Amino acid sequence: MGRGRRPSAEVRDEVLQAAGDLLVDQGMGAFTIEKVAALSGASKMTIYKWWPSKGALALEGYFSAVESTLAFPDTGNVRADLRSQLHAFVDLLSMTHAGRALAQLIGQAQTDPDLMESYRATYSSPRRALAVARLEAAVAIGQLRADLDAESVVDQLWGACYHRLLIPDRPLDHDFVDALVANLFGGVGA
Amino acid sequence: MGRGRRPSAEVRDEVLQAAGDLLVDQGMGAFTIEKVAALSGASKMTIYKWWPSKGALALEGYFSAVESTLAFPDTGNVRADLRSQLHAFVDLLSMTHAGRALAQLIGQAQTDPDLMESYRATYSSPRRALAVARLEAAVAIGQLRADLDAESVVDQLWGACYHRLLIPDRPLDHDFVDALVANLFGGVGA
Repeated sequence: MGRGRRPSAEVRDEVLQAAGDLLVDQGMGAFTIEKVAALSGASKMTIYKWWPSKGALALEGYFSAVESTLAFPDTGNVRADLRSQLHAFVDLLSMTHAGRALAQLIGQAQTDPDLMESYRATYSSPRRALAVARLEAAVAIGQLRADLDAESVVDQLWGACYHRLLIPDRPLDHDFVDALVANLFGGVGA
Repeated sequence: MGRGRRPSAEVRDEVLQAAGDLLVDQGMGAFTIEKVAALSGASKMTIYKWWPSKGALALEGYFSAVESTLAFPDTGNVRADLRSQLHAFVDLLSMTHAGRALAQLIGQAQTDPDLMESYRATYSSPRRALAVARLEAAVAIGQLRADLDAESVVDQLWGACYHRLLIPDRPLDHDFVDALVANLFGGVGA
């Protein structure tokens, strides 16, 4: 069967994989629909049929590409699991082009409402929901406070990392995320 | 004495005040050097002599304009003081054009290294230093843990607010900052 006759679900997966790889390996500056088309073997017309803009394609490809790296482990200890996941998150932001790419997408979204909508629908809302689900699972087995506002904890762990990514006054590293986790689990009071 | 002979410190203050007022009242979209010149009575040439770009002028004006609103109260109770200051901060971001203006400046800074440098030098680093000083004063009198990493707390209070400002998946309001403070002071563990 020729390439043109591949099932569309398969083509879609290959386009997303090419988009995610391109973003992580080379950043948003090098990201074009042409390159994704060349890497995936899909036509530009096919790609434009499924994604309204290169930002939307980059974000959906990135979400798929990082899903396994950012999966939440479940060793039975939520504090240790959050720490491991946050280390993987910070490594992804600092050791690949993903950090700069996300920063540029978030930056551009401040004056581009369509990109903001794509960012929230395709990336930030689903990632937030996964984090809240992991925190609520820990509430359910009594490892976190029963009255915990899990949404605010998301802003104090991953949101704090985005703050250092976007305004790099201080380093975004393992020591930082260890301090974030220690502040929340140990409390800051004397 | 004519306007042209005002002492330069006075002119500088009036330019900064005009810049800060313009940013808070009308946002970055309406911010021009021409308008600041007209409002302050200074010439455009004078303004360009002191500030390399309109971003740098907007940021320094904004810093001066919000300094008293964002001052840290000291009632002897650091938890209550942080809560009041954060309420004032969130009100400033949501009830004036300041929130959108800062979001656009941070956004543009992701692809404009000069603006990022101005933002960090003129706004984010000095504001961070003021917050760290307030937290360390509370450590010194035994209200916060002696081994506290104050820098990371800045990212979990104000940084968490910037996260909701820049990626508005959830509301940025008083309930949110109350949850941030409660998580840090009460701890999230069961």
